[in-house]
Amino acid sequence: MPTEPRFTFGLWTVGNPGRDPFGGPTRAEVDPVDSVHKLAELGAWGVSLHDDDLIPWGVSAAERDRIVARFKQALDATGMGVGMATTNLFGHPAFKDGAFTSNDRKVRRAAIGKAMNFIDRAAELNAEVYVFWGGREGTEAGIAKDPRDALERYREAIDTLGDYVHDQGYNLRFAMEPKPNEPRGDIFLPTIGHALHFIEMLKRPEMVGVNPEVAHDTMAGLSFHHGVGQALWAGKLFHIDLNGQRIGRYDQDFRFGAEDLKEAFLLVRLLERAGYSGPLHFDAHAYRNENAEGVWDFASGCMSTYRSLAERARHFDSLPEVQEALEAASTPELGLASVDGDEAESLKSEAWELDALAERGYYNERLDQLLVDVLLGVR
Amino acid sequence: MPTEPRFTFGLWTVGNPGRDPFGGPTRAEVDPVDSVHKLAELGAWGVSLHDDDLIPWGVSAAERDRIVARFKQALDATGMGVGMATTNLFGHPAFKDGAFTSNDRKVRRAAIGKAMNFIDRAAELNAEVYVFWGGREGTEAGIAKDPRDALERYREAIDTLGDYVHDQGYNLRFAMEPKPNEPRGDIFLPTIGHALHFIEMLKRPEMVGVNPEVAHDTMAGLSFHHGVGQALWAGKLFHIDLNGQRIGRYDQDFRFGAEDLKEAFLLVRLLERAGYSGPLHFDAHAYRNENAEGVWDFASGCMSTYRSLAERARHFDSLPEVQEALEAASTPELGLASVDGDEAESLKSEAWELDALAERGYYNERLDQLLVDVLLGVR
Amino acid sequence: MPTEPRFTFGLWTVGNPGRDPFGGPTRAEVDPVDSVHKLAELGAWGVSLHDDDLIPWGVSAAERDRIVARFKQALDATGMGVGMATTNLFGHPAFKDGAFTSNDRKVRRAAIGKAMNFIDRAAELNAEVYVFWGGREGTEAGIAKDPRDALERYREAIDTLGDYVHDQGYNLRFAMEPKPNEPRGDIFLPTIGHALHFIEMLKRPEMVGVNPEVAHDTMAGLSFHHGVGQALWAGKLFHIDLNGQRIGRYDQDFRFGAEDLKEAFLLVRLLERAGYSGPLHFDAHAYRNENAEGVWDFASGCMSTYRSLAERARHFDSLPEVQEALEAASTPELGLASVDGDEAESLKSEAWELDALAERGYYNERLDQLLVDVLLGVR
Amino acid sequence: MPTEPRFTFGLWTVGNPGRDPFGGPTRAEVDPVDSVHKLAELGAWGVSLHDDDLIPWGVSAAERDRIVARFKQALDATGMGVGMATTNLFGHPAFKDGAFTSNDRKVRRAAIGKAMNFIDRAAELNAEVYVFWGGREGTEAGIAKDPRDALERYREAIDTLGDYVHDQGYNLRFAMEPKPNEPRGDIFLPTIGHALHFIEMLKRPEMVGVNPEVAHDTMAGLSFHHGVGQALWAGKLFHIDLNGQRIGRYDQDFRFGAEDLKEAFLLVRLLERAGYSGPLHFDAHAYRNENAEGVWDFASGCMSTYRSLAERARHFDSLPEVQEALEAASTPELGLASVDGDEAESLKSEAWELDALAERGYYNERLDQLLVDVLLGVR
Repeated sequence: MPTEPRFTFGLWTVGNPGRDPFGGPTRAEVDPVDSVHKLAELGAWGVSLHDDDLIPWGVSAAERDRIVARFKQALDATGMGVGMATTNLFGHPAFKDGAFTSNDRKVRRAAIGKAMNFIDRAAELNAEVYVFWGGREGTEAGIAKDPRDALERYREAIDTLGDYVHDQGYNLRFAMEPKPNEPRGDIFLPTIGHALHFIEMLKRPEMVGVNPEVAHDTMAGLSFHHGVGQALWAGKLFHIDLNGQRIGRYDQDFRFGAEDLKEAFLLVRLLERAGYSGPLHFDAHAYRNENAEGVWDFASGCMSTYRSLAERARHFDSLPEVQEALEAASTPELGLASVDGDEAESLKSEAWELDALAERGYYNERLDQLLVDVLLGVR
Repeated sequence: MPTEPRFTFGLWTVGNPGRDPFGGPTRAEVDPVDSVHKLAELGAWGVSLHDDDLIPWGVSAAERDRIVARFKQALDATGMGVGMATTNLFGHPAFKDGAFTSNDRKVRRAAIGKAMNFIDRAAELNAEVYVFWGGREGTEAGIAKDPRDALERYREAIDTLGDYVHDQGYNLRFAMEPKPNEPRGDIFLPTIGHALHFIEMLKRPEMVGVNPEVAHDTMAGLSFHHGVGQALWAGKLFHIDLNGQRIGRYDQDFRFGAEDLKEAFLLVRLLERAGYSGPLHFDAHAYRNENAEGVWDFASGCMSTYRSLAERARHFDSLPEVQEALEAASTPELGLASVDGDEAESLKSEAWELDALAERGYYNERLDQLLVDVLLGVR
Repeated sequence: MPTEPRFTFGLWTVGNPGRDPFGGPTRAEVDPVDSVHKLAELGAWGVSLHDDDLIPWGVSAAERDRIVARFKQALDATGMGVGMATTNLFGHPAFKDGAFTSNDRKVRRAAIGKAMNFIDRAAELNAEVYVFWGGREGTEAGIAKDPRDALERYREAIDTLGDYVHDQGYNLRFAMEPKPNEPRGDIFLPTIGHALHFIEMLKRPEMVGVNPEVAHDTMAGLSFHHGVGQALWAGKLFHIDLNGQRIGRYDQDFRFGAEDLKEAFLLVRLLERAGYSGPLHFDAHAYRNENAEGVWDFASGCMSTYRSLAERARHFDSLPEVQEALEAASTPELGLASVDGDEAESLKSEAWELDALAERGYYNERLDQLLVDVLLGVR
Repeated sequence: MPTEPRFTFGLWTVGNPGRDPFGGPTRAEVDPVDSVHKLAELGAWGVSLHDDDLIPWGVSAAERDRIVARFKQALDATGMGVGMATTNLFGHPAFKDGAFTSNDRKVRRAAIGKAMNFIDRAAELNAEVYVFWGGREGTEAGIAKDPRDALERYREAIDTLGDYVHDQGYNLRFAMEPKPNEPRGDIFLPTIGHALHFIEMLKRPEMVGVNPEVAHDTMAGLSFHHGVGQALWAGKLFHIDLNGQRIGRYDQDFRFGAEDLKEAFLLVRLLERAGYSGPLHFDAHAYRNENAEGVWDFASGCMSTYRSLAERARHFDSLPEVQEALEAASTPELGLASVDGDEAESLKSEAWELDALAERGYYNERLDQLLVDVLLGVR
């Protein structure tokens, strides 16, 4: 039996006012408390947030407490959870050269401190995961940073924060969110792979996973479900950001399923088969030509497309012709070990049998066409 | 004192006959022995090779020995070394669905055996590194392979071969070569990051590094020198493939320096500063509209551009105005630890100082313009 | 009533033996006569061909006639038509620097002559359209060609061939096929737009249109249905090549519908609404891991997905909620003239009313979600 | 003798405060009058501007006149010219669904009126060219606009404005500026080619040319100098926007020469050889991590790199080895007509000579390496 998906939305997603590099806002900002209520109504499981989404930069300590209390009240009233919390380390102009990897040591320290401050709140809000998206950790002028120094500073920051969480006894895991570029010309930890490797270099690799985002690896033209597959294979898929994006474009953050339905299908099928049970987080926003009403069309669409794809995936796997086509493609055979205590000599001699092995076909056209037919609802 | 760079060329690079998807060869294949002699003459340090570059598929065992002996004679005569050796696991039609990750178990076993066979030769030829480029390890129809199964089979193959090298007592390290796509729609281990992570999942991570190629990460639009920086940071740069490529294109394998001179400069400067002493391998080929003569123009150009860039990098770093600009950008400050036994509370309170930290500039325009001036030889 | 679509396949598509830059053929070449019979069986309307697809380069004049006669017999026997014919100006090594724009004048002349020779055959075969795809018209080293000279030579060639068709009294229209790159680093006439403009510069613009290909404009990340829209708007869609492709990759030529179902839907809907009645030509090939059997799976899949999408498009437009959503988006209002004999002063004063015009939304999320729902067969 | 280049900067370029999608401004906006003075000091020839750059939206008519008078005074005082003027049809939220192609007819009318209002000012300021960049003319949800309707409305708007300029007797030419995407998912007239074709469809094609921008066609991975070459070939290069950009990224607008020096060299050489004498307009801005000081480093760098490249181009062409290499590549031969009153039969028979024509090489490696050597200042 499939479990009920736990959908979450960032406060900044439904709250996005439609500003872009060429124009100002097209709709009003939304009060986080209103978002909580509205999302609960639409069937979401929870929300996620940056510190600055909830607590405007510069308010007094008393005001901060008041805001958080009011927000918790809304969560309690609606039964909504907090899927993840994170620090905004990109909006403030001081982060213009980076946060954890700014060339200015004082900025790096302030960034670590800002994260600590909100980690306390995240624990207070029972957030499941604390995400690090290093949007400003990069360069336009590569000459200005030795990438080895930058990665060393990045590691130092995450290790320091890992120690902090450990020392405080918080029940909080970290998730690194990769992105190749924008807002920086090139960002450190550009893909899922780079982030997975970085985690292995940390002091506490066991408490850190990844938070891949459809749009981010897709910008670089990488197969998103392959990347998620590598994270799952390594036991490192701690959170996921769902949205839509065309390859080789600015960060579009479209509604989930708005682009590349086949890849979205492969992703949902993989998540469902792998038993991923973390938050399904929509990090996206309504098209800028929408007014306030369109925001909720957008939010509903994200969830309904996920459900449709999950249903299509189950239907696909239930079809006898699909099972036959998977067999014809030898797909299940990829799950079998290739070697099993073999002598090297026997493997070496099998190498000379390649000519005979070249004859067969793999029937991928048939299998992929079945997928297209299922996607289009004609089968 | 900079050491003399050790330039190598693949036999398949200068031997490339100019075939492409839309047309046949435009020049004759080159006898590997002739390549060794000609490259020695032009000042290369060595060559690299796939099994099938040297030993045509299907010849008898006796003929294989004869060919290898003749090749070793050419190496001895010229003093040329073997930078790396590798298995061709992509050319034979049996690998059409993958080699180590083919859905057909027999193909996977034959692939492992084929690699073992040439690992023996690599040891005999004193190759420094044994490379694995999994060009066929991927999909066009993602539905045909669970990426977790594919990675598990990939790991199994490398672990099996690592054991083999260990058991034979060969002095040989492995290097994984990532590529995002082509000839498969999507290739597993698409970037430097994915390969670095994969290595950490292996049984013998210490004997495995990466062999990044300019063209490959550039196809995906990633900063190549950032990726190489991550490999160097992890101590995993075992080999490198130099060439030229435009973002978002078919695999072009142009002459080193033919595209993106600034990135090439940043790469060479990084390699020189990091003291990378492995082979500098040109995995490229002459434009298809060249005849035999143009091949050697191509080879000379690769080496001379590397030397020019290394000289430009030393000159750049010798300029007082550059040192001043690096200081103004706080570049050296990125080498300093951000925290040093600090109390969490002090870091947390420093977070509130961001407004003051936003005032300064980083003078990256000035620094980058100095780089452009040096590149253009006007400074 | 929708007319029956006229599906065609290039002889080189179903005949593609699976060769790619990294490996040789994986299946046998197919006799063109067998392709005609098999495609007729599967429900295609016709075929298309390059000169060299039918008549191997270098055979005698008598053999050429014999081959063509046998081919015509197959067409007659099956009732299959010839959607388009074209010259292979890319395969022969002499075209390595270009055909109509080779720097070698003798090559340019031979290219024009080769086209004339097959234009005669095209007329004999009652081909509807004669296509020019200038795959070799470009550069890797931009310095080697002044683009103005190249375009002038390109124009000269098409004008010469246009005169030839006119003088011979053939009932044959030309279609220019754009492509951004591959096999050249950069190709002249890289997009639909460049080709449409080039046509306006010709001596006989009225006899020349475009043959856009999904894969080609998609490689450059352009919206294919927007490009086709511009061609239709100008009355210049003379032929179309349907297939599947990811952005920013090598030329993949996947089965139609295998990538980006939403864009494929928008394209099919546009073609159907515009009453395009030319050939629907699948310029694609089976995945390389298929053997002979998979080729026909591939061909059937192309046609069935086109039919499915056309049906989905009709269904979409039949839904009352879609009509409402189009109204809410003001889509029909884009068909109305903006001005109608207005005084400039009245338009100028209306400019000051923008603030009030900013309030409304366009309900594109709702409309696009309806499209996704229809695509997924859940509505 | 080369003429002195006429460098211009948009008021919005040096005035750019460093806002991006993920963060607010990092430096103060600059008073247009201060920009005029500072740019004059640095050696620029003039400025360019949108209506809203100079005249904030919403000020009174009297205030508008006062602002323009003060600006003209600054131009007079410094001798600076106005290279081009244009309408901001993207910033106001009313343009969220397009300006000339908004689905809302009232918005389309207001857009035309807004352009008319500033065309009057452009004439008053003696602007040479009036540019149309249709940044909002596009879609995220393709289903919301029939591209044929959109192009028809686009044409109607430009024709209406062309009539207006004609009727007023203004000495003003139009230039269309293409861009593939951002801020819209897909923009109509995405490339130089599409814009050149669109112009041929207008009522007054003779008064309309293109304003290509390095960043825009580069985003789509197209060769910028090929595109500019097509515009020059057609006599349609009325203005040009110079900057730096990586392929397949968000719109970066980097300093001219900051990316892809070889392409920048080919562009400058082409412009200089073609005798382009219009404004050389830097549509770029300082990196966001710069403060006010860095803006002028940026501006100086743009101009100095153009000058360096122009000098390098002259030097390149002055080298005897370059002239020899161009001859070896048959580059001058591309300037010769291919046919000259030939009989078709003679061309047809020359086609059979291809085998012999395949032998020669084109020496592009040698030629391109000379270019690299000149670029690096080592030759």
